[in-house]
Amino acid sequence: MEFPSKLIGNAVEEFSRLPGIGKKTALRLTLHLLKLPVEDVQHFGLAITTLREKIQYCKTCFNISDDEICSICANKSRKQDLVCIVESMRDVLAIENTQNYNGVYHVLGGVISPLEGIGPEKLKIDALFERIKTTEINEIIMALSPTMEGDTTVFYITKKLNESPNDIKITTLARGVAFGGELQYVDEVTLSRALVMRRPYESSI
Amino acid sequence: MEFPSKLIGNAVEEFSRLPGIGKKTALRLTLHLLKLPVEDVQHFGLAITTLREKIQYCKTCFNISDDEICSICANKSRKQDLVCIVESMRDVLAIENTQNYNGVYHVLGGVISPLEGIGPEKLKIDALFERIKTTEINEIIMALSPTMEGDTTVFYITKKLNESPNDIKITTLARGVAFGGELQYVDEVTLSRALVMRRPYESSI
Repeated sequence: MEFPSKLIGNAVEEFSRLPGIGKKTALRLTLHLLKLPVEDVQHFGLAITTLREKIQYCKTCFNISDDEICSICANKSRKQDLVCIVESMRDVLAIENTQNYNGVYHVLGGVISPLEGIGPEKLKIDALFERIKTTEINEIIMALSPTMEGDTTVFYITKKLNESPNDIKITTLARGVAFGGELQYVDEVTLSRALVMRRPYESSI
Repeated sequence: MEFPSKLIGNAVEEFSRLPGIGKKTALRLTLHLLKLPVEDVQHFGLAITTLREKIQYCKTCFNISDDEICSICANKSRKQDLVCIVESMRDVLAIENTQNYNGVYHVLGGVISPLEGIGPEKLKIDALFERIKTTEINEIIMALSPTMEGDTTVFYITKKLNESPNDIKITTLARGVAFGGELQYVDEVTLSRALVMRRPYESSI
């Protein structure tokens, strides 16, 4: 598609570089911007550029942060001795949205994946052990995805933790049948594990 | 959804104001931007703001333009005496993409719609008659959508053109069965009109 206006052509080009946005959607977004007041569009442009220019990684947990220390690590009302290990910032968001967690995080930036050439040295695992040395940690929650790579990473970290002298409790997320789903669609591994790991019935949940 | 970083929250907020983009897509786009080099993101932001700040309407045809006169009106190899009347810039793009039109345009900025309170005075119809007075126009092609509003607008302009003394030829887009469709799915109005308006068979098409 060719555009009689270079300005429009540029904007469409830039929009269509974003994932999941084709030329037609890009044009729709561009024409939408033209209808907005100038200040709104300037605001939009500014939000995007400042985001990329000013964002940094928290020096403690390696989560994406506005400052040197992220708002979660800086929040003294959160339990600093309860650390949840996650793969990425998206997992932090997912857990934060439950509004049910009051500890801090440690963002690995990925999981061990020999196939993709990601070894432990490419993740923030050394930094985790540095953190354990310098701060008192009571419990570490392994909240990685239940995949081959996630399990390998959990195994690697747990093994290394057990090698060094410490009395940190290691826990993982509970596994079982998800809420709201229908039993007939649960995969057999999850279902058989859920049967074996069955728990006393609690009427409160 | 709450974000631990205000910068991310802002960017997500701005993205999700765009049409058809929800919070989840906005977050995906924002996280994508974080992975890009700083210059690319600055480029993106700049393309958007300059678009809105610098865009203007062509003084001749009211198409969206980078300069006072758009590239189509300024192109002297195009027939300046053949004017195609369209509703919006999108229609200009659609016709330009056929690469089969060598005239210029006149963008009305809408169609007459009493229900939505759009009368002829809100459209660039007066400007069209000004244009007719000052430049020599041979033929006007009515390329408005075949809707009630489009037909009303065509009727209004044609009536006004016939009232004033001129020898401009007025034409409209050919109507009939579309290329590539199956005959059984063509609506009956189009099909019966196509039968009545049948043309001598030309083997060249």
